[in-house]
Amino acid sequence: MSRLKQALETCADDVIDALAAYVPQSADVDAKLYEAMRYSLMAGGKRLRPFLVLTSADLFDVPRERAMPVAAAIEMVHTYSLIHDDLPAMDDDDLRRGKPTCHKQFDEASAILAGDALLTQAFEIVARTDAHPDPAVRAEICYELAVAAGAPGMVGGQVMDLAAEAAAAPFDLDTIIRLQNRKTGALIRFSCEAGAVLAGMAGDVRACLKTYAESIGLAFQIADDLLDHEGDEAAMGKAVGKDAAAGKATFVGLLGVDGARAKAEALVAKAVAELAPFGDRGELLRDVAQYIIDRKN
Amino acid sequence: MSRLKQALETCADDVIDALAAYVPQSADVDAKLYEAMRYSLMAGGKRLRPFLVLTSADLFDVPRERAMPVAAAIEMVHTYSLIHDDLPAMDDDDLRRGKPTCHKQFDEASAILAGDALLTQAFEIVARTDAHPDPAVRAEICYELAVAAGAPGMVGGQVMDLAAEAAAAPFDLDTIIRLQNRKTGALIRFSCEAGAVLAGMAGDVRACLKTYAESIGLAFQIADDLLDHEGDEAAMGKAVGKDAAAGKATFVGLLGVDGARAKAEALVAKAVAELAPFGDRGELLRDVAQYIIDRKN
Repeated sequence: MSRLKQALETCADDVIDALAAYVPQSADVDAKLYEAMRYSLMAGGKRLRPFLVLTSADLFDVPRERAMPVAAAIEMVHTYSLIHDDLPAMDDDDLRRGKPTCHKQFDEASAILAGDALLTQAFEIVARTDAHPDPAVRAEICYELAVAAGAPGMVGGQVMDLAAEAAAAPFDLDTIIRLQNRKTGALIRFSCEAGAVLAGMAGDVRACLKTYAESIGLAFQIADDLLDHEGDEAAMGKAVGKDAAAGKATFVGLLGVDGARAKAEALVAKAVAELAPFGDRGELLRDVAQYIIDRKN
Repeated sequence: MSRLKQALETCADDVIDALAAYVPQSADVDAKLYEAMRYSLMAGGKRLRPFLVLTSADLFDVPRERAMPVAAAIEMVHTYSLIHDDLPAMDDDDLRRGKPTCHKQFDEASAILAGDALLTQAFEIVARTDAHPDPAVRAEICYELAVAAGAPGMVGGQVMDLAAEAAAAPFDLDTIIRLQNRKTGALIRFSCEAGAVLAGMAGDVRACLKTYAESIGLAFQIADDLLDHEGDEAAMGKAVGKDAAAGKATFVGLLGVDGARAKAEALVAKAVAELAPFGDRGELLRDVAQYIIDRKN
């Protein structure tokens, strides 16, 4: 097994344990809420964002018990976004990672509320006093998480994506890049910067992690478009080819398959270059950058 | 004009100004998101929760610029909850305060995302460094807001409310009280305690505000049931009698009209008694307690 694969699997196991502890089952009248939250949290996935949090924290020897709340929180935010994106009023997807989406498994009201609860709990677990001894760090994590997840970040990107479907003409490359920097880039950027924030590091190292994150975030989306263009539903665990069919601009559509692949590779090279200050300690983040364009799902 | 009415109107004007500044219009592809957020934020309402934040902060001479972010945040959370509650998958309401609900004015996807963005921005504005000079206060406000708004509080109460509709038999009084303490009580409790948190006050005075808030929160819900039983749609600006028609237990159904009114009055008396330590400074909060059972909408 490759070094990265082993590290990802260990991380995924740890994150699942943390999430299960944060969201216990309930024997009360509200049991369905916790069931829906747990269902979507435990539905698998690569746990890439928590891995980036834990791995960036390791660069600075941040104790695992201080990094894990942030890792769990970013996975809660990511999971909430998937639940809401899958709703009939949004992407109307029946399958996610090969399993029924939350609103298919439960119902729409439960899915909306499970998403709302996960988003809210993310802030609860990073703000509570035992998350980090320095309250300034707790407050900064809350602030950065909100900026990444909200209108300036992910939610705004999702609205841009819906606007792309309704637009008379496909968006140009600059607009697509801005869209993706918000829709998927913002949470990845938060995840990579979190290690520096948890360590109380500002300035150059944080800027390197930010540029690394922006590069892999965009590469990730270009790779997604390539997989969507070439991939098959079984490997992806969800419907493919929907964006192109909806007349939305994709990186493949704008740059061609070869152009998109070249752009993704250039971004990965840029990301790797940003890791120079960390020397050998950056090896897992280098592996992640490479993995993003090599992955099959 | 009564002292309270004047204070509420002044507060509402100030809060609207703050909200408009926090959520500017956008000229970008994401314009519809900000439009939907502003539409629901500006749709009127008594602004009771921000008023409780500002008034509890005044008890401790907390500067207005430190209280206003929290007041705006709680109104954002309240507004998000109304937007999501009104959705077809939830209460399916077409009108809110006499105007089309967010999903009727825009569309379901925009309403879901506007709610998501408002919830997230609430944490952004209370966590940012200029909200309060003490980071421990900023982190505590984030934490308490998340507990009040999320699964342990409002969202859990909403799930209990949906379970009440699906239940074979109406809930008993204890369960209804637990439901309301979460669904509407949690945000009111946060709002009243916020003044003490912002002032760095713990212990007895904070406990008094908590009990005050729990009492008026429950009285508020009982008064709502009474208005729903007796009121007319024009005064309420929304459909009435829906809970009883849905076979859900209400305080009026469980206690009768006279019993419900007596319970609400006892709770208001209890709330007023908790304000004793604040002397004359508690007069507006005393007025609020009385207003809650005297209001007509």
